Amino acid sequence: MKAIVYHGPGKIEWEDKPKPMLLEDTDAIIKITHTTICGTDLHILKGDVPEVSDGRILGHEGVGIIEEVGTAVRRFKPGDHMLISCITSCGSCSYCKKGMYSHCENGGWILGHLIDGTQAEYVRIPFADNSLYPIPHHMDEEALVMLSDILPTGYECGVLNGEVKPGDHVVIVGAGPVGLAALLTAKFYSPGLLMVIDTDENRLEVAKQFGADYGIDSKQVNPIEIVKGLTEGKGADVVIEAVGIPATFELCQSLVAPGGIIANIGVHGKPAYLHLETLWSHNIKITTRLVDTITIPLLFKTVQSGKLLPQQLITHHFALNDALYAYRIFGHAAQEKALKVILTA
Amino acid sequence: MKAIVYHGPGKIEWEDKPKPMLLEDTDAIIKITHTTICGTDLHILKGDVPEVSDGRILGHEGVGIIEEVGTAVRRFKPGDHMLISCITSCGSCSYCKKGMYSHCENGGWILGHLIDGTQAEYVRIPFADNSLYPIPHHMDEEALVMLSDILPTGYECGVLNGEVKPGDHVVIVGAGPVGLAALLTAKFYSPGLLMVIDTDENRLEVAKQFGADYGIDSKQVNPIEIVKGLTEGKGADVVIEAVGIPATFELCQSLVAPGGIIANIGVHGKPAYLHLETLWSHNIKITTRLVDTITIPLLFKTVQSGKLLPQQLITHHFALNDALYAYRIFGHAAQEKALKVILTA
Amino acid sequence: MKAIVYHGPGKIEWEDKPKPMLLEDTDAIIKITHTTICGTDLHILKGDVPEVSDGRILGHEGVGIIEEVGTAVRRFKPGDHMLISCITSCGSCSYCKKGMYSHCENGGWILGHLIDGTQAEYVRIPFADNSLYPIPHHMDEEALVMLSDILPTGYECGVLNGEVKPGDHVVIVGAGPVGLAALLTAKFYSPGLLMVIDTDENRLEVAKQFGADYGIDSKQVNPIEIVKGLTEGKGADVVIEAVGIPATFELCQSLVAPGGIIANIGVHGKPAYLHLETLWSHNIKITTRLVDTITIPLLFKTVQSGKLLPQQLITHHFALNDALYAYRIFGHAAQEKALKVILTA
Amino acid sequence: MKAIVYHGPGKIEWEDKPKPMLLEDTDAIIKITHTTICGTDLHILKGDVPEVSDGRILGHEGVGIIEEVGTAVRRFKPGDHMLISCITSCGSCSYCKKGMYSHCENGGWILGHLIDGTQAEYVRIPFADNSLYPIPHHMDEEALVMLSDILPTGYECGVLNGEVKPGDHVVIVGAGPVGLAALLTAKFYSPGLLMVIDTDENRLEVAKQFGADYGIDSKQVNPIEIVKGLTEGKGADVVIEAVGIPATFELCQSLVAPGGIIANIGVHGKPAYLHLETLWSHNIKITTRLVDTITIPLLFKTVQSGKLLPQQLITHHFALNDALYAYRIFGHAAQEKALKVILTA
Repeated sequence: MKAIVYHGPGKIEWEDKPKPMLLEDTDAIIKITHTTICGTDLHILKGDVPEVSDGRILGHEGVGIIEEVGTAVRRFKPGDHMLISCITSCGSCSYCKKGMYSHCENGGWILGHLIDGTQAEYVRIPFADNSLYPIPHHMDEEALVMLSDILPTGYECGVLNGEVKPGDHVVIVGAGPVGLAALLTAKFYSPGLLMVIDTDENRLEVAKQFGADYGIDSKQVNPIEIVKGLTEGKGADVVIEAVGIPATFELCQSLVAPGGIIANIGVHGKPAYLHLETLWSHNIKITTRLVDTITIPLLFKTVQSGKLLPQQLITHHFALNDALYAYRIFGHAAQEKALKVILTA
Repeated sequence: MKAIVYHGPGKIEWEDKPKPMLLEDTDAIIKITHTTICGTDLHILKGDVPEVSDGRILGHEGVGIIEEVGTAVRRFKPGDHMLISCITSCGSCSYCKKGMYSHCENGGWILGHLIDGTQAEYVRIPFADNSLYPIPHHMDEEALVMLSDILPTGYECGVLNGEVKPGDHVVIVGAGPVGLAALLTAKFYSPGLLMVIDTDENRLEVAKQFGADYGIDSKQVNPIEIVKGLTEGKGADVVIEAVGIPATFELCQSLVAPGGIIANIGVHGKPAYLHLETLWSHNIKITTRLVDTITIPLLFKTVQSGKLLPQQLITHHFALNDALYAYRIFGHAAQEKALKVILTA
Repeated sequence: MKAIVYHGPGKIEWEDKPKPMLLEDTDAIIKITHTTICGTDLHILKGDVPEVSDGRILGHEGVGIIEEVGTAVRRFKPGDHMLISCITSCGSCSYCKKGMYSHCENGGWILGHLIDGTQAEYVRIPFADNSLYPIPHHMDEEALVMLSDILPTGYECGVLNGEVKPGDHVVIVGAGPVGLAALLTAKFYSPGLLMVIDTDENRLEVAKQFGADYGIDSKQVNPIEIVKGLTEGKGADVVIEAVGIPATFELCQSLVAPGGIIANIGVHGKPAYLHLETLWSHNIKITTRLVDTITIPLLFKTVQSGKLLPQQLITHHFALNDALYAYRIFGHAAQEKALKVILTA
Repeated sequence: MKAIVYHGPGKIEWEDKPKPMLLEDTDAIIKITHTTICGTDLHILKGDVPEVSDGRILGHEGVGIIEEVGTAVRRFKPGDHMLISCITSCGSCSYCKKGMYSHCENGGWILGHLIDGTQAEYVRIPFADNSLYPIPHHMDEEALVMLSDILPTGYECGVLNGEVKPGDHVVIVGAGPVGLAALLTAKFYSPGLLMVIDTDENRLEVAKQFGADYGIDSKQVNPIEIVKGLTEGKGADVVIEAVGIPATFELCQSLVAPGGIIANIGVHGKPAYLHLETLWSHNIKITTRLVDTITIPLLFKTVQSGKLLPQQLITHHFALNDALYAYRIFGHAAQEKALKVILTA
């Protein structure tokens, strides 16, 4: 079969690889119908994720059809249409039992990282009963690719950890795909004010189309002043960090109201200052989280009821065998006005 | 001044009463601008609430303008426009400190019950700093009368106690004003399915206009079958009882899914059977609550952000001095297609 | 092998049965070392649980050693010492993913009920990776039998659902084994006042030895008066029902303070009155629950740290092949001053 | 009257000041019977809290007897014995209504800071109905001084924010008075392992006497290795920071398990590094909090039931008019083996 294969920093190829086979009784082999590229894949490509070894097939998102299942897979059978979680969970270790699949002792984020991934014609999914989700009839399967990673990430790490409530004043710092995923799912709770901060005009425009009350261009204005002005000087109840650099994390600390929460989604590469000299007495909470994808069933229901339109995040479509080209486009996401791209087999 | 005065079962008059005066340093005198009639007022009129004595001015909802404040009132001053909570709270007893104002040792539901109420030209409000809420400029004051009682009641007793979450299957039993208030505020959380059960076709129609996915006429169909059919046989995650009779409470027990919640809003006059012989192992929760009105500030924010339109509940308008006529109309609410009536001074 | 076999109401035998074999890849066969008899087994014996068919081996509690595992069992191997949960969980259905193992679509309470149980020399445990718990070295294995069912039941259904907090006033109605299990685990939270109501003097005495502040004999005194007297007239913050008849459930309704919780543990055979005519405005919560055994790992830690002494519940010891005699003793538990009995192979 | 008066960095005097008078209807004047000195008072003395002006009477803890109340004080009367909260709360601002008294718009921490404090023969307490707590008969009033600040601080900022649960592995970094207050109140929840880290042998000894399972001297051993060794390599579920310097806050980040919480109590003067480059994916929570003293009623109940012995924290006794000498001793707390000192009028 064909797949996107990593060959060290800066090098990926669309090349032939052996079709995956069942290795464990709990495995399933999926024929990919739709997949996508994640910001994390670009990090891998840059060489920022050294555990990814030469020869690894990338990708941790996608939907597909079961080709074959191991003897211990009870819930699904060949022909079933499935959503693939970016997080593999065994379902029985102490972390899985607490719903913290991200830290599964036998899984976690391994697809396209420690084992071969989804940017391929076929993929092997360990612990299929726990790591796959059946797709109800008549749903838009392409759009559901957004439920593999980006929407649960925005929702769990940003909105749930941020404890967004009706009437809350919410700021999202960063209007990239994950910040927008947080925006779409924050709307589940009818916040009073949804403010988005970015430096890219186009993305701020998209944020407003997606329901932000204010798009704040931090190149043009002082975002602290604007947020304070919109919140009677108090700051925001919930601040969602969706960039991942020290400067934006420090900005978040200036935006949060006493009693508020900073929910970190961003993937950070460096330490940042925490201003405990002021925050120690501000009664705040800061959270970090690698997505558990425990909310995929809930997100399915919100899609079915029309409360969430995952297709809003999709800007570009490619054939799976144009994956290299798709990487090029997605690598210049801001310039190409790309949010998420779909690769269809 | 003129007021609606109770004179025993079946008898109310619009008559002269002395204008109220400050009795405690913490009191305020409010000039009523808008008030309404509650289902509870009809219960009082029937003689169902024996603590209401002859001569009592009725009414526990309304907005108005401060005329005078006691020396210990710090937060508000004459001329301020205020929303009156139906629950009076001292702010310092053990119940108030827990946010359970309904059981305030020095207040609770006393307006139009144990002390004179709001269906009058003026009313005395004890513990003004805690029992009144300032109305921001440019808000529709008439609509805010819905925040005195009915919307916090539907929200706190039904939706918050019911723990409605995105994607949840929610049934509301009873499409009267308080059931509809629960419906409007359940929508804050993007439930997956909102089902309303009633026997009044018009009210079911209104429920659908207000956002119910299904209106179920229990005179025409078996509501248990319908709800099970809509929920893969499981029943609803959240069942809100908004009638207050044994039959509907028993119906709720047949509608709730394992792991679900029955949130009782209805005012009950009789015991009901609880089917512990089946429910003991169903992992359910049943809640009761007299409204605390602790969510009034949150509801203000949802009105300001356009997420809640309280005016949707208002069907009839009268002059305050037509209050007796308004009682007649509201006394035949179903027939008159009345939800809430507004009396304007 | 030998086992306790049910042959219809009133009839059990200690008789030969075929040794169980692996049926699924996820099964384990356990050689029982210690088991016990549950109040539920007596109910089955009376014929109250009609789903139990003639020929069924009873018992749903125990510890033992793995004899054999299916090919898909990854976490454990022959020779490992294991605690058996009374609840079998597949780990991947929607209920298991919510931690509600009691309603597992492929398990739940099936041992000694719908499949053969633990009062035998060997037992087959489905979904071994999820339904068994490894016993750390140097623990008292006999005492751990109390973690199969009774301690998680008292803890989850009584104490966790009752939301016991430091300083709380707690009443437990019923000082049988499960009431005492609730008592032992309520102490985890340093309640202010632990009151136990029963009609058996000996059990009340045991309750006091186990840490109850008051043992209230409801044959001698009016428990409502006593509890009100001990709680400034308010009633208890948490009321745990551990009997399972209408009279005690109604008593609980008279004991609960405004804002309090009634946590039902009792297995009920009949409906009971719920006094909504008074409780509708008391802001209370009533919970029911079939144990999920989700807290077994937590309970292990409390045993290891010496905070919980499960052996306190064990009053009688028998050889496994004296199981019939043990049933006779346990069948007259009050008279024999029996709490839990241990059957050792 | 006599009082401890601040006269700029390094200068305090025991000198004559006018006896305080009622300024507002909601004030009370308290005759101090017992007070104490807080670590914060030493910070003030060093000049670290510039808002404290020359002439200010210090002290924010104490018990006493009401001498006089304003006309709007309803709950208490002259002669009543009261505990003084270190936090003054109006009870009606938006923060007080959320239970966040520390940020009361009309109070907060003002005693011995922005208004005159309790290290005096008399003190004026604003919002007496909300800021004082009645002392039940027969309680040890001297010991209750520990409920003014230090025990609620350890409990709210450390234990409640840290969400300590039965069986949890808990580390407290810092065995000074506030760390020990966290230790005493962490025990309410029966943690599985209580580890305390400090560099002072005596304080570690005290921690063990107070119930710590392990006292870890970070001058002698590597605390990270020790904690990892005691927790199967995972780290602690709850890490409580009770020092307030960058080094200890960074240590906490190395001690916390995935899914764990760092609850900050320490008063910080500088920013610290937050190692987001590793923690971003560890699913942790970090909290900060200025004590709200909202748990004073709960702590009263734990003292009454014998679960908490506040006198354990008291090491030294002085007459109130020896306050200057007491400051000298407390200023060398480690050397004098002092935890909390009591000054008695």
